[in-house]
Amino acid sequence: MATLAEDRTENPEELVREIALAGRAAQHVLAGMTSPEKERALHLAATALRADAEAILAANARDISAGEANGLSGAMLDRLRLDEARLEGIASGVDAVASLPDPVGEVIGTSEPPNGLKLSRVRVPIGLIGMIYESRPNVTADAAALCVRAGNAALLRGGSEAVHSNRAIHAAMVRGLAEGGVPEAAVQLMPTQDRAAVGAMLTAAGMIDMIVPRGGKGLVARVQADARVPVLAHLDGICHTYVHSAADPEMAERIALNAKLRRTGICGAMETLLIDATYPEAARLVASLADAGCELRGDGRICALDERVIPASANDWDTEYLDAVLSVACVDGLGAAMDHIARHSSHHTDAIVTDDETVAERFLASVDSAIVMHNASSQFADGGEFGLGAEIGIATGRLHARGPVALEGLTTYKWLVRGSGQARP
Amino acid sequence: MATLAEDRTENPEELVREIALAGRAAQHVLAGMTSPEKERALHLAATALRADAEAILAANARDISAGEANGLSGAMLDRLRLDEARLEGIASGVDAVASLPDPVGEVIGTSEPPNGLKLSRVRVPIGLIGMIYESRPNVTADAAALCVRAGNAALLRGGSEAVHSNRAIHAAMVRGLAEGGVPEAAVQLMPTQDRAAVGAMLTAAGMIDMIVPRGGKGLVARVQADARVPVLAHLDGICHTYVHSAADPEMAERIALNAKLRRTGICGAMETLLIDATYPEAARLVASLADAGCELRGDGRICALDERVIPASANDWDTEYLDAVLSVACVDGLGAAMDHIARHSSHHTDAIVTDDETVAERFLASVDSAIVMHNASSQFADGGEFGLGAEIGIATGRLHARGPVALEGLTTYKWLVRGSGQARP
Repeated sequence: MATLAEDRTENPEELVREIALAGRAAQHVLAGMTSPEKERALHLAATALRADAEAILAANARDISAGEANGLSGAMLDRLRLDEARLEGIASGVDAVASLPDPVGEVIGTSEPPNGLKLSRVRVPIGLIGMIYESRPNVTADAAALCVRAGNAALLRGGSEAVHSNRAIHAAMVRGLAEGGVPEAAVQLMPTQDRAAVGAMLTAAGMIDMIVPRGGKGLVARVQADARVPVLAHLDGICHTYVHSAADPEMAERIALNAKLRRTGICGAMETLLIDATYPEAARLVASLADAGCELRGDGRICALDERVIPASANDWDTEYLDAVLSVACVDGLGAAMDHIARHSSHHTDAIVTDDETVAERFLASVDSAIVMHNASSQFADGGEFGLGAEIGIATGRLHARGPVALEGLTTYKWLVRGSGQARP
Repeated sequence: MATLAEDRTENPEELVREIALAGRAAQHVLAGMTSPEKERALHLAATALRADAEAILAANARDISAGEANGLSGAMLDRLRLDEARLEGIASGVDAVASLPDPVGEVIGTSEPPNGLKLSRVRVPIGLIGMIYESRPNVTADAAALCVRAGNAALLRGGSEAVHSNRAIHAAMVRGLAEGGVPEAAVQLMPTQDRAAVGAMLTAAGMIDMIVPRGGKGLVARVQADARVPVLAHLDGICHTYVHSAADPEMAERIALNAKLRRTGICGAMETLLIDATYPEAARLVASLADAGCELRGDGRICALDERVIPASANDWDTEYLDAVLSVACVDGLGAAMDHIARHSSHHTDAIVTDDETVAERFLASVDSAIVMHNASSQFADGGEFGLGAEIGIATGRLHARGPVALEGLTTYKWLVRGSGQARP
């Protein structure tokens, strides 16, 4: 029997249109559910994930075998691999999202202008969210849960290397949600891996309300370049830490080592260290990073501090290494540091280390990045660490939502106007 | 001497890039100005508009002559025409925006997660806003004032028919703002009317942060279709009023007449009236609209009420007349009314008239439009009436801002993180 996908890969726009219409219809049902109903349905989805553990792990084993046969890197295989513990982590994540406060219905503000109308703005779901992601099968469950908690339908398109895992996770989620009254089409998995269907998602303006890409730079760049649907994403995380002259040396060292080396592959990892020319412990700071195994690429003044520093090229200041490599520049004061950041930052997360509160507040006020930090490691740039309970992604665009995005960013608002018969003069 | 524009119309992308870079640099200066500094500069701009009245009105007279020679319609000439009173209205509008509370720096929320970081979200300007508009020269001053109040730079591209008026208004604004310390490039008027330059604005992603089109449907549709920069706009205002069975007949009549006929050409004007099949005064309501000179296009049950009603075609339910024409449908209850709205509304403003509070609250909760009203005329859909002090436009998209957009919608936010040396475990 030919599947829907096999019938339609010749016409990906029509396929996406059918899926989107079904998703939008399901979203209308979801929008009418109460917060406890959505919460219960999500707990049932978590239960279904646990009940299907055997099937999900078997599906994952197929993906891992295929990945090994196709020569996937160790890092990619690790992102792809599930085991009992990771699957329990996914199910617990769905339970956690279920228990987050429902943003829908929250009153953002009220007013009563002179015409006597009673105005309020109330949060409502956005509609249908498209997720495009790569090898991590946990995104299938995480994204579905966040979308449903905020009353949105989801259209998920995961990576080909995780196709069996994603189908098994999706099947469990949908079954559990359906037990709780959520229509099956509220969470749909793209039934084909054809790349043309991704293109059709990106151009489905008016059918899909927002696209969230999760994955490597190639994926995000393609989505940003081709999408006509609004995209919530970040491309790069070129994060800076500026060690000011009044930084506490012990704190500067702790923060720099953590920001660079705790996990080098995350978007909040520091990629450039700016050391003030008047910071007295610059040599010690550079040495401690080199001692920890970090490759350092510096400007002339930094190279002079430690023979293990190699000269940076012009490209280094605009490079996201995602590895134990760091570019290090010596800067002459706060203004020079902020100039460097304005020129080279990807406006994801930039930080200052200083004990001078006045300088810190100037940095916080002037640096225009999604997240600006004082005396903290940029690795804290994360929805969980920010107390949001989860995150659908981190956004570096300027509209709608910025920084870690969780449930609030998956809502919009409408104006409610309560009158008493007013006609406009 | 060749102007910048004449040199560059062969390369509109390069022209827009140069203008945008200058605008972005000016915006950085503007972002560093205090609220009282921006307020003072805007009052100086208003003063400059008044001082330049003679030059502005002379420039406007040139546009009017050219428009008459080119056969512009009376309505277009009226939109274009300035006189002492209208110019004073423009200057007063700039003074009013100057006095609005500055949204920049407002703390949206604070939290302190278990890691001890002190988090806050603070409103910041968006950056460079592109305005693309048609014949109303007041937009030049209104949009510039709103952008500057919220710390944004503006790139204005007005209609060719208003080119002299716009240049004169822009020159006055920029001179006044400069007296107050705002860099000239903070408000730029596109130096060419070449349409290719509009295309270059629409695709200047990363250089222009948001585009706001103001004008007819043709303009907005082109902008929405071609833009790669985020657009804040509404295309249609197909606004509904549902007269429920429990509506007060006198109120229903007052609201319907006002919603349709107060001004027929605005986006908040009612275009479709839904009358409940059990509403006892349907014939009276229909007659009063016909008596007031409104052309009525109804379904079978409405045509039966009054011989002046002509049969509606299928297209009528999706038509924004912007004229004294109204489509009228008879609906069987709240559900049918909401179904009709879901299918045909442009999600701008939809209203119910009823004395049944339970029904009203169900309508407010379920109808998913930017503005949902109870017992009020849809003509109140306006930033001024909503107490926002002004509006840059009304948005029917789902992201960033919805409904009337004023200063808050011209801002984004950043996260400030104040730590005490934390490294992430």
